[in-house]
Amino acid sequence: MSNNIVLGIIGAGRIGKLHGENIVNNFPDIRLKAIADIYADKIIEWAQGIGIEEVYEDYRDILKDPEINTVLICSSTNTHSTITIEAAEAGKHIFCEKPIDFDLEKIVAALDAVKKAGVKFQVGFNRRFDHNFRKVHELIKEGKIGDPHIIKVTSRDPEPPPIEYVKVSGGMFMDMTIHDFDMVRYLSGSEVEEVYTNAAVLVDPAIGEAGDVDTALITLKFKNGAIGVIDNSRRAAYGYDQRVEVFGSKGGVTVSNDTPSSAVLSTSEGVFADKPKYFFLERYKDSFVEELRQFFNAIKNDTKTPVEGIDGLKPIIIAMAARKSYEEKRPIKIIE
Amino acid sequence: MSNNIVLGIIGAGRIGKLHGENIVNNFPDIRLKAIADIYADKIIEWAQGIGIEEVYEDYRDILKDPEINTVLICSSTNTHSTITIEAAEAGKHIFCEKPIDFDLEKIVAALDAVKKAGVKFQVGFNRRFDHNFRKVHELIKEGKIGDPHIIKVTSRDPEPPPIEYVKVSGGMFMDMTIHDFDMVRYLSGSEVEEVYTNAAVLVDPAIGEAGDVDTALITLKFKNGAIGVIDNSRRAAYGYDQRVEVFGSKGGVTVSNDTPSSAVLSTSEGVFADKPKYFFLERYKDSFVEELRQFFNAIKNDTKTPVEGIDGLKPIIIAMAARKSYEEKRPIKIIE
Amino acid sequence: MSNNIVLGIIGAGRIGKLHGENIVNNFPDIRLKAIADIYADKIIEWAQGIGIEEVYEDYRDILKDPEINTVLICSSTNTHSTITIEAAEAGKHIFCEKPIDFDLEKIVAALDAVKKAGVKFQVGFNRRFDHNFRKVHELIKEGKIGDPHIIKVTSRDPEPPPIEYVKVSGGMFMDMTIHDFDMVRYLSGSEVEEVYTNAAVLVDPAIGEAGDVDTALITLKFKNGAIGVIDNSRRAAYGYDQRVEVFGSKGGVTVSNDTPSSAVLSTSEGVFADKPKYFFLERYKDSFVEELRQFFNAIKNDTKTPVEGIDGLKPIIIAMAARKSYEEKRPIKIIE
Amino acid sequence: MSNNIVLGIIGAGRIGKLHGENIVNNFPDIRLKAIADIYADKIIEWAQGIGIEEVYEDYRDILKDPEINTVLICSSTNTHSTITIEAAEAGKHIFCEKPIDFDLEKIVAALDAVKKAGVKFQVGFNRRFDHNFRKVHELIKEGKIGDPHIIKVTSRDPEPPPIEYVKVSGGMFMDMTIHDFDMVRYLSGSEVEEVYTNAAVLVDPAIGEAGDVDTALITLKFKNGAIGVIDNSRRAAYGYDQRVEVFGSKGGVTVSNDTPSSAVLSTSEGVFADKPKYFFLERYKDSFVEELRQFFNAIKNDTKTPVEGIDGLKPIIIAMAARKSYEEKRPIKIIE
Repeated sequence: MSNNIVLGIIGAGRIGKLHGENIVNNFPDIRLKAIADIYADKIIEWAQGIGIEEVYEDYRDILKDPEINTVLICSSTNTHSTITIEAAEAGKHIFCEKPIDFDLEKIVAALDAVKKAGVKFQVGFNRRFDHNFRKVHELIKEGKIGDPHIIKVTSRDPEPPPIEYVKVSGGMFMDMTIHDFDMVRYLSGSEVEEVYTNAAVLVDPAIGEAGDVDTALITLKFKNGAIGVIDNSRRAAYGYDQRVEVFGSKGGVTVSNDTPSSAVLSTSEGVFADKPKYFFLERYKDSFVEELRQFFNAIKNDTKTPVEGIDGLKPIIIAMAARKSYEEKRPIKIIE
Repeated sequence: MSNNIVLGIIGAGRIGKLHGENIVNNFPDIRLKAIADIYADKIIEWAQGIGIEEVYEDYRDILKDPEINTVLICSSTNTHSTITIEAAEAGKHIFCEKPIDFDLEKIVAALDAVKKAGVKFQVGFNRRFDHNFRKVHELIKEGKIGDPHIIKVTSRDPEPPPIEYVKVSGGMFMDMTIHDFDMVRYLSGSEVEEVYTNAAVLVDPAIGEAGDVDTALITLKFKNGAIGVIDNSRRAAYGYDQRVEVFGSKGGVTVSNDTPSSAVLSTSEGVFADKPKYFFLERYKDSFVEELRQFFNAIKNDTKTPVEGIDGLKPIIIAMAARKSYEEKRPIKIIE
Repeated sequence: MSNNIVLGIIGAGRIGKLHGENIVNNFPDIRLKAIADIYADKIIEWAQGIGIEEVYEDYRDILKDPEINTVLICSSTNTHSTITIEAAEAGKHIFCEKPIDFDLEKIVAALDAVKKAGVKFQVGFNRRFDHNFRKVHELIKEGKIGDPHIIKVTSRDPEPPPIEYVKVSGGMFMDMTIHDFDMVRYLSGSEVEEVYTNAAVLVDPAIGEAGDVDTALITLKFKNGAIGVIDNSRRAAYGYDQRVEVFGSKGGVTVSNDTPSSAVLSTSEGVFADKPKYFFLERYKDSFVEELRQFFNAIKNDTKTPVEGIDGLKPIIIAMAARKSYEEKRPIKIIE
Repeated sequence: MSNNIVLGIIGAGRIGKLHGENIVNNFPDIRLKAIADIYADKIIEWAQGIGIEEVYEDYRDILKDPEINTVLICSSTNTHSTITIEAAEAGKHIFCEKPIDFDLEKIVAALDAVKKAGVKFQVGFNRRFDHNFRKVHELIKEGKIGDPHIIKVTSRDPEPPPIEYVKVSGGMFMDMTIHDFDMVRYLSGSEVEEVYTNAAVLVDPAIGEAGDVDTALITLKFKNGAIGVIDNSRRAAYGYDQRVEVFGSKGGVTVSNDTPSSAVLSTSEGVFADKPKYFFLERYKDSFVEELRQFFNAIKNDTKTPVEGIDGLKPIIIAMAARKSYEEKRPIKIIE
């Protein structure tokens, strides 16, 4: 397969458009040939404006195009596994937004198809490519903190999603904590062995009525002996709160929130600083570019992608265990 | 009883001496009349040097002195409850170092004696009087963060105690985390309802061989609906790590470590700041004075002490539950 | 004149190329038609790679093109004023890199030509568009600090330029401090009335031999009564240091350096943070895009540009006075 | 002379009382025998309360007491030099509050008397003993920043003194900046060679009417080639602002303000931190103890005091030059 990447994007919702624009603005040597969306007519103007050549209603038109060798799957979650299988069978390299699916069997089937086809496959866990978290990862890999002992992730959203979304989201653990499950694997360099969930409905009773939780502390045991905790809230009054701390035998490392500016205002009222960057589009702006850069590089150099199939599968398994722990009020072992 | 406090200290180890010097240096109107220690001869010079009038081998000599109306119990833990009972029966106001005892029945008996005697009783949870934690407490009481949702305490020692001490310490939860159990009650303004312990031996295998743990994440449920987590390590390479974060419906508050100076050095090697203050004597220096000030005020004004008997009892119960959770690998409800 | 901007860039050195790429990646509706450089053959590949249609050796070919209505002057400083005059006479809107010239008469002549032609003119003081400094500017404009009393600018480079460059740079005040002179005008909202320079050669004697200084404290008086100080060094061992502080009747505001990450590593050796972002290309990356955005908007909406001719002229006058103050060892009044 | 320090305090205003209490609370081996104040009757109760044996109206009663070998001169500034001379002639070691005098000849006469008598003499520049500034000093001495190039001191008061005080204070440079002149000598390890003052009346016109200034930037040249700037304001709305920065050939060091707590509150309104500690009594609390400790040690060990006569003289000379520079609008050389 040629190293000249010709790209099709499947799904032109918020994230599909984001990737489209990032590609046009940052990868002049990548040809973004086509985009498919079931509401194709609504995106034609946008697509042409950034120079995408073809707009399809049916993603199969992208899979059929022999020039296109790579696809970005940005459609709704329930279509990810099916499209992954079809794309793999069509020999396309695949970048698939997270989660691959809510159903383990479907994920396994999709990953099998990828393996069989021998195509590149990357899952959209963009936070691994964030400047702060990557730095933590590097410091750990360099041995600066020794063996990891305690891993702490704080992940709080500025606002809960609409209640209609909550109902179909797969639950907070699957929809929101999934990024944190990926993060602890990334930072610990180890697999989660056991999970215990301490969760509550404190933000909005409607979330509880929908069968979900909105506040959680999830403690973890890792294969390498480390322990960890993730804390989540669906609503932090001060905004998007994204921090990690890893503590080890030789020291610890923390990262704090990014802010729009470093301005500190001191008055008779007190000392004031900026709130965190508003939400994930602002906070993780550069990480969305970087994940694609590394995906494209993996294709060009025929190397491993930085977030492989197993990295898409494991967080789903942990999320399921976290939910089970919440329901059964006991620690749950992670299946291998 | 007169408001003129005449004081005896029982036990002249590190903490007894610390209190003695703090009293002499900060409370000129308090008469520190006597100190008792089983190694009386070893402390005579020190005691006279700071103007203590009498040095006894037997603490009962203090209890018998009708001039002395107040005692500080700073002897070894296994004597606390007995001396408390005797001191209460002798009509003395009591400041008792933590923990009151490792045995619930003995604690209850001691508190009953205190109640019956109608004397003031305060437990030495000095961290409540620390400038940082008190500020967090005040901000919460003022409603600045709304209802508490998530309470996080980081408490890590610079070095584990000698293994001989570990063996008689009552275990990490009773010896070290006990302060954190007090802290979460102080900050949450609520009682702990359930505890789950995720602990490990990562610092020193000898600690494990002694039947204890050295690293832990303890998650908590509070009566008011909040959830919490304490993380402990017996050894932080960078020193004494004492931070809290409370997150609520209207916002969050964090406090960071105190440092010897605010100096930040920037060189070609990087940007360097001070490590935290070395250990509890440096870090909590002022809190040891402040707890006495409030104890003395409670006596003078005949008001409630800021850390009462129940505050000495509850952390012991939580520590026991934390240990049980660790042993039985399941969440444990706190007995009422 | 149509609002459809068709652009030519004159000069394809580092800054010309930067602007070219920024335009292609951020302003899809702007047609970047041509670029001119005396070494045209060396830039053809780069120019075609980002889709520039024409590459000329002679900038006059751009001025002659009736389709092109806007030029970016990024050539060497000694050509700025001449090209500005020719471009104005050709009716082109002009974005001119700083400084306009080292010669006041030439600047005045260029600004006269701009005025006569009625074209838009903006000077490339990009730091005004930096997120930190803009925030300080906004807080002052909102009255948060009251009347400005003291304005402090810290501006230190990571490394001095090559000595050959120093010799033709116009001197540190003209080459480096010029940005700070612009900054104090931007932040104070007032004109500089008097300047006193306290400067030295402390970084490299060769700079002194070339007749220049490498370290300076320049104090300023402003028309509105405020006072200010700029401190410069040609070499900060820890990197590019770009901070400001404005203190006023109601309070003060500071901004600190941006860093690659917020990671703080704590070990037995100490507490370590990132050094500042390396140099101006990293530190002011977004400001280069933002200054163009506002320039293009000024053209489209026929409004004032945010950095006008007078803003290009005044810093030159101050730089000259700063030099004179250094030479004559006395405060110098700024000519009107 | 015996190493047993027997102390008399001359002057029982705010600072005299502060020293008295610090001695009683921190130096149990120092005998604070007497205190003298022209309003002796007003301080008797206070003095007896902390165990001072004698209270005199006339300081000469202290000088006459052969048991007393050390005096603290805390009376009004205009008496410092006279009392210093008399105390030296009486063979007493002397700790003298700053400034020694406003008159150079009187200072020189006082220092001559000290020298002739061979007694210890220390000036009360307490900020040298502050944890932050001392750390900066140490880092510089250890060579961490290389040769100092730029020294910056920020020193702003929370409120101007009463206008009646302003009139007799000797002016802002003598009353307030004097500490900063001491600080730059302490940090630079070098003498000031030249000073230029850029000052204004921006806080209160009444200060201007009293012939003084309330806002200033004072730039300095040092013998070792470094340059420096002090910025002062008589009123910082956010409180007492005490920071320094020293920049050198190998890096830089900064210290920021101390705060009552490290609490950071994040809400929908923003991110809030504590204001600086209120004023010098809170901010420099420990430094007042430390300066005495080192003074007493110098007596006990017969070593040099850490702030000698020359250190009391030089800041006065610089303050005079700063005033002259302001009046004559030109840089002023410091006399040797």
